[in-house]
Amino acid sequence: MRHIDEDTITQAVIARHAAAGDARLRDVVTSLVQHLHGFARDVKLTEAEWAEGTRFLADCGVASAAGRSEVTLLSDALGLTALVTAVNQRRPRGCTESSVPPSTHGEQDRRERAPDEPLYVCGRVRALDGSPIAGAQARIGSRGGRSEVQPSGSDGSFICKTTVAAPQPVAHDGPVGRLLQALGRPPWRPAHLHITIDAPGYEPLATQLFRQGDPYLDVDAVFGVRSSLVADWVCHEPGATPDGDASAVPFTTLDFDFVLNATTGDKR
Amino acid sequence: MRHIDEDTITQAVIARHAAAGDARLRDVVTSLVQHLHGFARDVKLTEAEWAEGTRFLADCGVASAAGRSEVTLLSDALGLTALVTAVNQRRPRGCTESSVPPSTHGEQDRRERAPDEPLYVCGRVRALDGSPIAGAQARIGSRGGRSEVQPSGSDGSFICKTTVAAPQPVAHDGPVGRLLQALGRPPWRPAHLHITIDAPGYEPLATQLFRQGDPYLDVDAVFGVRSSLVADWVCHEPGATPDGDASAVPFTTLDFDFVLNATTGDKR
Repeated sequence: MRHIDEDTITQAVIARHAAAGDARLRDVVTSLVQHLHGFARDVKLTEAEWAEGTRFLADCGVASAAGRSEVTLLSDALGLTALVTAVNQRRPRGCTESSVPPSTHGEQDRRERAPDEPLYVCGRVRALDGSPIAGAQARIGSRGGRSEVQPSGSDGSFICKTTVAAPQPVAHDGPVGRLLQALGRPPWRPAHLHITIDAPGYEPLATQLFRQGDPYLDVDAVFGVRSSLVADWVCHEPGATPDGDASAVPFTTLDFDFVLNATTGDKR
Repeated sequence: MRHIDEDTITQAVIARHAAAGDARLRDVVTSLVQHLHGFARDVKLTEAEWAEGTRFLADCGVASAAGRSEVTLLSDALGLTALVTAVNQRRPRGCTESSVPPSTHGEQDRRERAPDEPLYVCGRVRALDGSPIAGAQARIGSRGGRSEVQPSGSDGSFICKTTVAAPQPVAHDGPVGRLLQALGRPPWRPAHLHITIDAPGYEPLATQLFRQGDPYLDVDAVFGVRSSLVADWVCHEPGATPDGDASAVPFTTLDFDFVLNATTGDKR
């Protein structure tokens, strides 16, 4: 192991892990080393760039220490979170797609609350064969806060009342924000609602709903938008609301069908 | 950009950087995204593993915030530092090889000082054609401290007095130490001296010298050992020393030829 040069170093590192007791860890680190070295070779990374990169990662950690997930945000911004979600949340065609999990955005949410215009999500939960799913637990979160959990009725329908979301930036006063700026990328996310639906016998769904016409749909900083998750958010004058009540202020409604995947079904 | 799935996400992320003003940054990030996504795909990274990985990196940053370079140590342990050094310090055959730069190890050095047995490095600095280089500035550092700068004489020779180095572990009470342990890797580095030699008209040399017979030569935690940098460290009874003085205690000598690369020569 003493004849290490730029051609043999990668294999030398991998060989060092032959004794690892955890085979999965060994395989993961082996692939990581191969790709990390491949990256450095492909771009002929200079020593100054290497130093800048290690400093950048350390800065991300420092920012994380201050109570926010800057490393997660970096993963989001590089599309890694979206990829991992997609790889692990494969569902048959026709099922509602998942989207990236909420990460650092909650903190920002609370700092930049929108006016509390009511939003009614009128959902219908069903299986892939179209049959309604009763007793599903639906919960919606927007930057205005989280709704109560609402169960679906015998026809699979539920109504969650929350507040209208607006576009918002990811936390961009840290290292990742500076990277996005250097890359010419806006830090904005389109308006979105986080929604989770749990029903016995079905895979849990965690996804996001977006607003048709939002100016940031094509530049979502964390790559969470899916065509199938963009819906019409319909504005209403004050009056009768979907839950049988009445609103003295304008309100918005959003109809959406959620199609769950049975846990016993073919998931791939 | 809304039809993102596990097959299209990588291209979607790369396309987002088309507007980057800094072409080099764009190219580096493009390659990084390709390799990062390739890694996640190759190992089918689970969401739990992704979460553990982001936590690990954040922990490295937190440790870095506490005043040590845990991220650099991670790069060292994965052989990235050695690779970047090798790629950027290519020299014609016959020149003295460079080795990984000192990073986090200095802190550990001061905590675990060896007994101060004197070590005399008797160096000869020459060019690739064999001609001696006078007036080169040599500086040696071991875990006992750094030597004074010593100039080479008209025959290219210099003598630096320092203290004998012993094997030492890298800082291993943090996240990287835990990773090494999980991988079945000892955290040890073989005994080594850091040395820098600067001479006008020649590329600066920063390298390390190792001790023949050291038990850790083949498992150096940071992949710094090169066969050409391993030398005999010769032990002597008290008596006359190479600098013309005398030692009342046992001492060690180390002879080494340093071959520098002319800055005007062919470097590749």
